[in-house]
Amino acid sequence: MNQPAAPIQSKIESTIDPARIDRWLAEDVHTGDVTTDAVLDAGAPVAARWVAKAEGVIAGLAEAEAVFRRLDPDLDWRPVVAEGDAVTAGTELVAFEGAGRAVLTGERTALNIAQRMSGIATATRGYVDRVAGHRARILDTRKTVPGLRDLDKKAVAIGGGVNHRAGLYDLAMIKDNHIAAAGGITAAVAAVRAYAPAIGIEVETTTLDELDEALAAGVDLIMLDNMTPDTMAAAVERTAGRARLEASGNVGRDNIASIAATGVDFISIGALTHSVIAFDISQRVDRIQS
Amino acid sequence: MNQPAAPIQSKIESTIDPARIDRWLAEDVHTGDVTTDAVLDAGAPVAARWVAKAEGVIAGLAEAEAVFRRLDPDLDWRPVVAEGDAVTAGTELVAFEGAGRAVLTGERTALNIAQRMSGIATATRGYVDRVAGHRARILDTRKTVPGLRDLDKKAVAIGGGVNHRAGLYDLAMIKDNHIAAAGGITAAVAAVRAYAPAIGIEVETTTLDELDEALAAGVDLIMLDNMTPDTMAAAVERTAGRARLEASGNVGRDNIASIAATGVDFISIGALTHSVIAFDISQRVDRIQS
Amino acid sequence: MNQPAAPIQSKIESTIDPARIDRWLAEDVHTGDVTTDAVLDAGAPVAARWVAKAEGVIAGLAEAEAVFRRLDPDLDWRPVVAEGDAVTAGTELVAFEGAGRAVLTGERTALNIAQRMSGIATATRGYVDRVAGHRARILDTRKTVPGLRDLDKKAVAIGGGVNHRAGLYDLAMIKDNHIAAAGGITAAVAAVRAYAPAIGIEVETTTLDELDEALAAGVDLIMLDNMTPDTMAAAVERTAGRARLEASGNVGRDNIASIAATGVDFISIGALTHSVIAFDISQRVDRIQS
Amino acid sequence: MNQPAAPIQSKIESTIDPARIDRWLAEDVHTGDVTTDAVLDAGAPVAARWVAKAEGVIAGLAEAEAVFRRLDPDLDWRPVVAEGDAVTAGTELVAFEGAGRAVLTGERTALNIAQRMSGIATATRGYVDRVAGHRARILDTRKTVPGLRDLDKKAVAIGGGVNHRAGLYDLAMIKDNHIAAAGGITAAVAAVRAYAPAIGIEVETTTLDELDEALAAGVDLIMLDNMTPDTMAAAVERTAGRARLEASGNVGRDNIASIAATGVDFISIGALTHSVIAFDISQRVDRIQS
Amino acid sequence: MNQPAAPIQSKIESTIDPARIDRWLAEDVHTGDVTTDAVLDAGAPVAARWVAKAEGVIAGLAEAEAVFRRLDPDLDWRPVVAEGDAVTAGTELVAFEGAGRAVLTGERTALNIAQRMSGIATATRGYVDRVAGHRARILDTRKTVPGLRDLDKKAVAIGGGVNHRAGLYDLAMIKDNHIAAAGGITAAVAAVRAYAPAIGIEVETTTLDELDEALAAGVDLIMLDNMTPDTMAAAVERTAGRARLEASGNVGRDNIASIAATGVDFISIGALTHSVIAFDISQRVDRIQS
Amino acid sequence: MNQPAAPIQSKIESTIDPARIDRWLAEDVHTGDVTTDAVLDAGAPVAARWVAKAEGVIAGLAEAEAVFRRLDPDLDWRPVVAEGDAVTAGTELVAFEGAGRAVLTGERTALNIAQRMSGIATATRGYVDRVAGHRARILDTRKTVPGLRDLDKKAVAIGGGVNHRAGLYDLAMIKDNHIAAAGGITAAVAAVRAYAPAIGIEVETTTLDELDEALAAGVDLIMLDNMTPDTMAAAVERTAGRARLEASGNVGRDNIASIAATGVDFISIGALTHSVIAFDISQRVDRIQS
Repeated sequence: MNQPAAPIQSKIESTIDPARIDRWLAEDVHTGDVTTDAVLDAGAPVAARWVAKAEGVIAGLAEAEAVFRRLDPDLDWRPVVAEGDAVTAGTELVAFEGAGRAVLTGERTALNIAQRMSGIATATRGYVDRVAGHRARILDTRKTVPGLRDLDKKAVAIGGGVNHRAGLYDLAMIKDNHIAAAGGITAAVAAVRAYAPAIGIEVETTTLDELDEALAAGVDLIMLDNMTPDTMAAAVERTAGRARLEASGNVGRDNIASIAATGVDFISIGALTHSVIAFDISQRVDRIQS
Repeated sequence: MNQPAAPIQSKIESTIDPARIDRWLAEDVHTGDVTTDAVLDAGAPVAARWVAKAEGVIAGLAEAEAVFRRLDPDLDWRPVVAEGDAVTAGTELVAFEGAGRAVLTGERTALNIAQRMSGIATATRGYVDRVAGHRARILDTRKTVPGLRDLDKKAVAIGGGVNHRAGLYDLAMIKDNHIAAAGGITAAVAAVRAYAPAIGIEVETTTLDELDEALAAGVDLIMLDNMTPDTMAAAVERTAGRARLEASGNVGRDNIASIAATGVDFISIGALTHSVIAFDISQRVDRIQS
Repeated sequence: MNQPAAPIQSKIESTIDPARIDRWLAEDVHTGDVTTDAVLDAGAPVAARWVAKAEGVIAGLAEAEAVFRRLDPDLDWRPVVAEGDAVTAGTELVAFEGAGRAVLTGERTALNIAQRMSGIATATRGYVDRVAGHRARILDTRKTVPGLRDLDKKAVAIGGGVNHRAGLYDLAMIKDNHIAAAGGITAAVAAVRAYAPAIGIEVETTTLDELDEALAAGVDLIMLDNMTPDTMAAAVERTAGRARLEASGNVGRDNIASIAATGVDFISIGALTHSVIAFDISQRVDRIQS
Repeated sequence: MNQPAAPIQSKIESTIDPARIDRWLAEDVHTGDVTTDAVLDAGAPVAARWVAKAEGVIAGLAEAEAVFRRLDPDLDWRPVVAEGDAVTAGTELVAFEGAGRAVLTGERTALNIAQRMSGIATATRGYVDRVAGHRARILDTRKTVPGLRDLDKKAVAIGGGVNHRAGLYDLAMIKDNHIAAAGGITAAVAAVRAYAPAIGIEVETTTLDELDEALAAGVDLIMLDNMTPDTMAAAVERTAGRARLEASGNVGRDNIASIAATGVDFISIGALTHSVIAFDISQRVDRIQS
Repeated sequence: MNQPAAPIQSKIESTIDPARIDRWLAEDVHTGDVTTDAVLDAGAPVAARWVAKAEGVIAGLAEAEAVFRRLDPDLDWRPVVAEGDAVTAGTELVAFEGAGRAVLTGERTALNIAQRMSGIATATRGYVDRVAGHRARILDTRKTVPGLRDLDKKAVAIGGGVNHRAGLYDLAMIKDNHIAAAGGITAAVAAVRAYAPAIGIEVETTTLDELDEALAAGVDLIMLDNMTPDTMAAAVERTAGRARLEASGNVGRDNIASIAATGVDFISIGALTHSVIAFDISQRVDRIQS
Repeated sequence: MNQPAAPIQSKIESTIDPARIDRWLAEDVHTGDVTTDAVLDAGAPVAARWVAKAEGVIAGLAEAEAVFRRLDPDLDWRPVVAEGDAVTAGTELVAFEGAGRAVLTGERTALNIAQRMSGIATATRGYVDRVAGHRARILDTRKTVPGLRDLDKKAVAIGGGVNHRAGLYDLAMIKDNHIAAAGGITAAVAAVRAYAPAIGIEVETTTLDELDEALAAGVDLIMLDNMTPDTMAAAVERTAGRARLEASGNVGRDNIASIAATGVDFISIGALTHSVIAFDISQRVDRIQS
């Protein structure tokens, strides 16, 4: 059996298909890297390393490798650390050698994705560490960059978080507007069950009364939105294991421990993916054969 | 004649072609927004507004509109502010009405792109304001998110910055590796001119001696990389208008004014696009016809 | 609130995007309908009607219209019956007029999709009628033709059925292989909840003991696979509303009423989409302007 | 030289290009097989077999293999029977082993295509057997499922049939509407020859007078549409080898032998592809390494 | 009925779908026309005309319009001449007005396609005029530029030629290699008829003996490859209308009339499309609103 | 360091991606090469050679190989000459062996691209040879066939020419319309620098006064459009190395030497790519295994 909660697994597997990498590379390379092509034979081997310039958690190496390998299928790629590893400034991440076209021309595109994903993994790990010892696990949201949802979510998983729904289609999330349209939580849950019997259901609640109504409707997952820790603790007690509870809203590094202490099952954080600080990585060229 | 430096113009026009929006929407909607579809007729009209929740500069409304309109071609979209406008928390940005499928189902995708672009425009404007009165203009870099380079750069332009090269293909940027491979700045410039006579050339320099060599080679654009303000000032004096100078490296809100004071023509800042803080925007539903 | 069980709604909306229709038409038309093009001006108007040649339920008119309209955007399309309507042999379904290229060249492609979808809707309605008065609703399966899952499922919904999961991604279905790999139903449910907290879960059971284990694990949807009506009735009694039950396996026109009489919530039928008898429709040309 | 009439050859070769398989898999798998991914390591080897559950003719194994191999390029695929082989219930068709992701996740998509193609091959073989000893060969039509024409036709060829035209572009088929528009069979043939000198021509006839006119026009292929066996026999006699004749309309298992006995060259049957009964195949897992 | 041999009709209709024009424009415009965008508002109206700079036959105006219209859907396009018209140097072809982005940015792409197509139409008309009064019609070949076969062939039709087969799929052309592989013309024809009953057949012959064998096999179209006019005349006599004859090989402006005089039905010329002299067209701007 | 001016290098690398070759092959092969498929086993090996039928410079072998290899990945391809080599009639270019499907079915598509590219390389070499001993190098233009710009330009480079700008995006070319819109050369240069600081600039001039204004604006590349050799010589003297000069307009084989004698740096010739005479290559089959 698969280990639950293994940090580097993701329900949303990233599919680094060639067409997608080609779209990325086309943004940067298009008709050619005129500088490199002018001074270097396209096939001349170049050896390089990536070095961390800060403390953090590494992700996106597989995507970076895919970028380089798209430009040189014979790339020699020797990772020194694994995805999910915590590193410090100066840690060597990977050593590689390939055609100049791959190593120099692919550098920026490869760094752009790896620095974003490592930034997400680093931020996630910070939160995961702060809730250690509690039941709560860190969830991501749908607040991702258009075109990168799968990789943003993969980076969260690498950082030790758990992926929430992939999108609007794989879990019903009944929010205030839906409750208003349906005429109440009970009616909304019934409408979803009649319409899509095979889908899971989460209900967003802001009060304990709404929580009670969601519990009575028999849903398995309930969001506690913008509640105080005291209210959340009351919600946990009242739920008594009949459903799993997700804390949401105004979660930060300062208050996350107290939220986890309420006993909720999940804490979701939009900033994990909507406000990413790139993790600084430097590409150092060891040898150019001119 | 076109006004030079008009803040909302961009050399890289964003092409919001339907296939691209479909890729974005497919990430979130795929086979359907089961919650909304279960409780609301797909075509039921919903009226909503977007409201700023912080102080900043707005961008990405055209892209947001394109997302909604892809889901409802008859969308009624009434912007209250223009792209590039500075707003404060509580400012209404746009009022719109459309089918529930557009307004509720498209909400997250539309917000995700607009919040990123507004975050970039806001950060850019902050730097632009700090160099006001100086010759220096703010440049972006190639440190963008894979798949969004055009929109990241468009947001910089909306914020008042100027776009640097689009990629590796429309300007030769001779860096240390290229100089090493070619055997010197002069040789590298000659190699590029022989190879690609129609392309512009920039040389990256770290010392005044390298600057002199770049000036002697007759290039029009020179990067001063990680120089102190004093060295930059000396570079400006020595250049005497023979080339345009770009300051690069370790630029922050605290030191940008002193860099601008050296008289350089451009200051480039990677963080504008590699570490974006999403600008907070709230979608408020005025009316749902259930 | 939306009416549950409205027969023509589908959670999986068919997206008749132009690229898809172009793929269909390319199969048949490719470089041109040489016969029609040789004897008729491409733009010459042709008036035609579709007439049912048997008794059944109509579906796929929207898709047929999209095919014709792709070939003539100015097509005049006047449906006589609505999707979901029951018709008899001789019933006129739609009258339309357009360029010869649309009416004659698009005929086969349009009929191919409409005859399949009407065949599915007709078969579905047959089963729906047989379980009238019972709680049970008719579910489809994933046994669809590659490339047409959305339309196959849409046709089921038009026939009065309810769509089961769209695919492997929007509901976890724990089957014998998964139970074996995880080491039991309880362990498998726990593994799925740890791995994908936001997804719904169904468990496939073949005995009442397995049913008990699934109920104890708290899942909301349970499949009764190849059970006799007596066992199913016992399962319904034992479940007592704690979960919804889906009967599956060896369902036919002869025994479906007795299955429904057991009180199950759903009955799923693979043949609805894997063995479709095309519903016969004839295109009759009223007038060709030569 | 190629053997004419080899049963498993098809003029329309199926091109199982990766993009097409990806479209099929996207329907079912999309962001992932959550059940399998939760309980099984993606790469864990799984051994399985396919077993026929009825009597029939096998087709679609190459397509099934392509589906599995797209998910695991290292798949070990060992066919026991060849395409075109007749099997009975219980016959093992293929044994294979691959990553769990391939074997379990690809199962449904692979079965869906193979069961359809085997269903077509089985039905075709039934007709072929019924006309054995006669000159007549079994032809398919353009009544195929949108998106699968090549595979539907390949399955007919595997079953021993011969493929009629691929579409509207590779043979002119002059039907009643074309005759009306051109002003007669002779005029229609002349129009096609003037317009497309390189294309073959078939004329649809319903009477012996029309047959005479088609023969006089010198066409090589003539359809006898909805004629009685007696009229067809007269047509064969009158034609005397000057053209090849295709019987069409109301062909069934009961009357096909008497049609063949008239001496026609071809008999075309739309139901071969428009009303397919899936051939039942079961995937049995031998071993899962958990 | 359609007029046979109308010069501007083509069996291969050009499909100027947006994706194709986008591929063309991407070659030239990509991220933007920096010169025009810098000096002119994108939307500023520009009025222009196209003027012929030589004597010839015009084609490709529809394709040019499609290019411009892709950049400005509101383009005002007023053709002065029709496709197929013969013009002289100085003839105004079209007057149009649109956004600067359309008129200036699309100019080169639009001219590139129109100048090629007009060059093909002009060359074709030259040959057509030389065979006037004879039975022979001018055929094109498959010697077209990759990616433009449909438009190359459309231009031939506009010039008054007739299109030969579209490709390898819509007519069997039995050449020396096929005859060798099959073991003779008779065997090759039989193999094709058995394999693809619905396809037309042409046989390539180099001697009168081969012609006799092809005639005996009953094919409708026979190529006389590299025969002298005397041999061709003998072939025409011997054929006596039993098949249509195509002269091929070493056809030039000097000898085409004598070839036509032999009485062949068609003369095919590869140079029509493999060696195209662009027809010179000048775009003249009447007014720019700066 | 890379050798400047190596004849077979091109800034625009041709990307022979599979999708593009598939588009080419689809034009010709589509559903299959019925003739070859009917008489030859698809996999039967065929050995062939390509032989030049005229004197010229070879290009496009890589593209031809890619076409054949797309149809047979195991193709054995043994080039006898290199791209850029000058050959005479009768020279063997390449010997190869592969499946019949590759060798016979791919023949026309492979020849079509290689004959065009060799035609371009041959014409280019003719001009290059005529300017030998002079400073001037031969430039191409944007007058290429839609869809083949990269390969047209690659062929020019193989012939010994140098590639001008790739399109409208990688060099600003200020022409008469831009000068008019901006209000003069100086204003237009300033507008481009303000708008796109990273782009190179060329100015088109027709008089020495305009040349002076362009030189004063500090641009690096200046076109001398339709000037007489005497005026060009005066322009070279006046420029004195401050910028590089491109002669353009009415360049032919007869006058190119006198243009080169003026001392200009570049001479651009549109006919290199807009009016290509295909270089004649013959495919000879050595052996067919039937």
